[in-house]
Amino acid sequence: MSTLKGTPPGGAPSLREGGQAGELPRTVRIREVGPRDGFQNEPEVIATDRKVELIDALARTGLKRLEVTSFVRADVIPQLADAAEVLARIDVPREVNVSVLIPNERGLDAALHLRESVGPRASAGDSGSSGGPDTPGGPDIHGGDPGARGERAAFDEINVFMSASESHNRNNVNRSIAESLAGLEAVLGRARAAGLRCEGVISTSFGCPYEGHVPLERVLEIAARLRDAGAQEIGFGDTTGMANPRQVREFFTAAREQLGEEVELTAHFHNTRGQGLANVLAALEAGVESFESSFGELGGCPVPAGATGNIATEDLVSMLHEMGIETGVELDALLACARRVQEVLGRALGSHTLVAGPVEWDV
Amino acid sequence: MSTLKGTPPGGAPSLREGGQAGELPRTVRIREVGPRDGFQNEPEVIATDRKVELIDALARTGLKRLEVTSFVRADVIPQLADAAEVLARIDVPREVNVSVLIPNERGLDAALHLRESVGPRASAGDSGSSGGPDTPGGPDIHGGDPGARGERAAFDEINVFMSASESHNRNNVNRSIAESLAGLEAVLGRARAAGLRCEGVISTSFGCPYEGHVPLERVLEIAARLRDAGAQEIGFGDTTGMANPRQVREFFTAAREQLGEEVELTAHFHNTRGQGLANVLAALEAGVESFESSFGELGGCPVPAGATGNIATEDLVSMLHEMGIETGVELDALLACARRVQEVLGRALGSHTLVAGPVEWDV
Repeated sequence: MSTLKGTPPGGAPSLREGGQAGELPRTVRIREVGPRDGFQNEPEVIATDRKVELIDALARTGLKRLEVTSFVRADVIPQLADAAEVLARIDVPREVNVSVLIPNERGLDAALHLRESVGPRASAGDSGSSGGPDTPGGPDIHGGDPGARGERAAFDEINVFMSASESHNRNNVNRSIAESLAGLEAVLGRARAAGLRCEGVISTSFGCPYEGHVPLERVLEIAARLRDAGAQEIGFGDTTGMANPRQVREFFTAAREQLGEEVELTAHFHNTRGQGLANVLAALEAGVESFESSFGELGGCPVPAGATGNIATEDLVSMLHEMGIETGVELDALLACARRVQEVLGRALGSHTLVAGPVEWDV
Repeated sequence: MSTLKGTPPGGAPSLREGGQAGELPRTVRIREVGPRDGFQNEPEVIATDRKVELIDALARTGLKRLEVTSFVRADVIPQLADAAEVLARIDVPREVNVSVLIPNERGLDAALHLRESVGPRASAGDSGSSGGPDTPGGPDIHGGDPGARGERAAFDEINVFMSASESHNRNNVNRSIAESLAGLEAVLGRARAAGLRCEGVISTSFGCPYEGHVPLERVLEIAARLRDAGAQEIGFGDTTGMANPRQVREFFTAAREQLGEEVELTAHFHNTRGQGLANVLAALEAGVESFESSFGELGGCPVPAGATGNIATEDLVSMLHEMGIETGVELDALLACARRVQEVLGRALGSHTLVAGPVEWDV
């Protein structure tokens, strides 16, 4: 795999040697959320054919985790009304973890029903990509049980979500935090019983557009509840891009201390004020090794219109590779996906690496 | 000064307490290079009236350092042909350091001639802004000697520049590195003798688009030569956005060790691949307290067309303030300048904080 071109000055392999500015991990796990989070924010419904094509292409870039759709009410989010069809048609290599967003118990019912009806199926992807077949999605993924090599289930994992601030949670899902927690605890229990891996995502973890400061203690209390209910991974979302690197470093240091070593901690940053990758760096220094991002810089509820939402996967991968941190992703293949989604959407996308191209050290 | 709104979680004042991820400075110095670097890259010549208006407005945002123009040949860069007129007409408070870019001895001749002919003059800005009148531009600025309070010279400082890579230097100024060094040593000697403060800027310090890797040793060798010739400050430019945070940390750690404590080290990053502010964070952690940036994200030789060049001053200020690091800049006033330059240029600019607005903690 030629993810490192030439000899980037910061790309030498002697990481984990620490130094005054914090240690850096050797490898990082990335969940690509564009097919769900990104597509969901597109005003025009994308043809199912195009979604399947893009997901299949992303699954062959070396990305190990893909959030592909959501089981939400079709009248609420028409863009994702084809969730069952997308899951039935995609052809994702066995070693790539496929997850779906689940808003509530009704969504879980639909997802489990689909999973039963599709059943294990052959996958054409087993011959190629990188990564071991026994570890879909990273080192601590034990759910999914996609059957023997050469077969996989419709999906391996569910992601549930709620906000850390009352007003944002009410605005987003029309429930109180207590109501959301109770509902998600039920969802997590049933999903784990069905053999699924589970991630709990907490929105507005670093600040709320309606309430401002969100106490760290409240966020970690919700995280502990979701963990205790069965979530093996907690994702912390900077929903409107309010996080800063100093806060991020303190946040994840405290999160690791209070939530223990067993649960995976994932950072989901937005680039609303241009600090997305600076926050990634701060999180890396605080020991975070798992990130969520979106190819083409799609999605992330950009507010106001024209603002940036999610950090772009290609910008994240570019920075990590330049720093000598492995992701398993082929940057050129990922950029091809971003160019293709530009064509599909019919507009230019704003990710920096897509516009400028990767750093070329061999010239 | 209300640069910090509400209570940002990362903005508490207990900096310099260190921690595993490196110490952070309490205050940072910013040189605004938009009026030179930004305007220079604009295809349409901007009216001198508009330049004067924008420089005068920038000088009242709390920015302490402004690079306002360059003494280059008018046929090479028509945009800056009005350098003398701009310097004669701007009204910049006494405590704001004004610098001009000098390409060679002929440029210095023109600049010194202008400085003599304008002479010290009254400034309307002495009543207002922040900062002490005896320290234009920051703590270690001793040049300039702008005369008594209420009077100032046309400019206080010169910036000279060359590249760390032979091919980029040849391409940019049609000289070898040895020729450039000899020429700039003469310029620096004469400028210091004339009482001017001097910065030496080294382009392609973190990588060259023609040569790829640029050895750290070569960059620091050039820096030492410029320092020895009289430069009190060395600016390191990431000319085409090839730097990564790990490299930046190692670079500035080595630079401080080898160049000593007397010379000011300044980081000039581009956001070509979205890593600009991440590189700022790495530089802060390595002890850098001086940065260059451009309001509205103007300039920085964006290659290819449409790519991002300089980091935006408003994004830099936003991140630093959110981290609790002081800059002296009023972000709202700076954003007003960026909005005004959008009007002047007749097109939307891409800085994140300009589009999304500052973080609001009091809601």
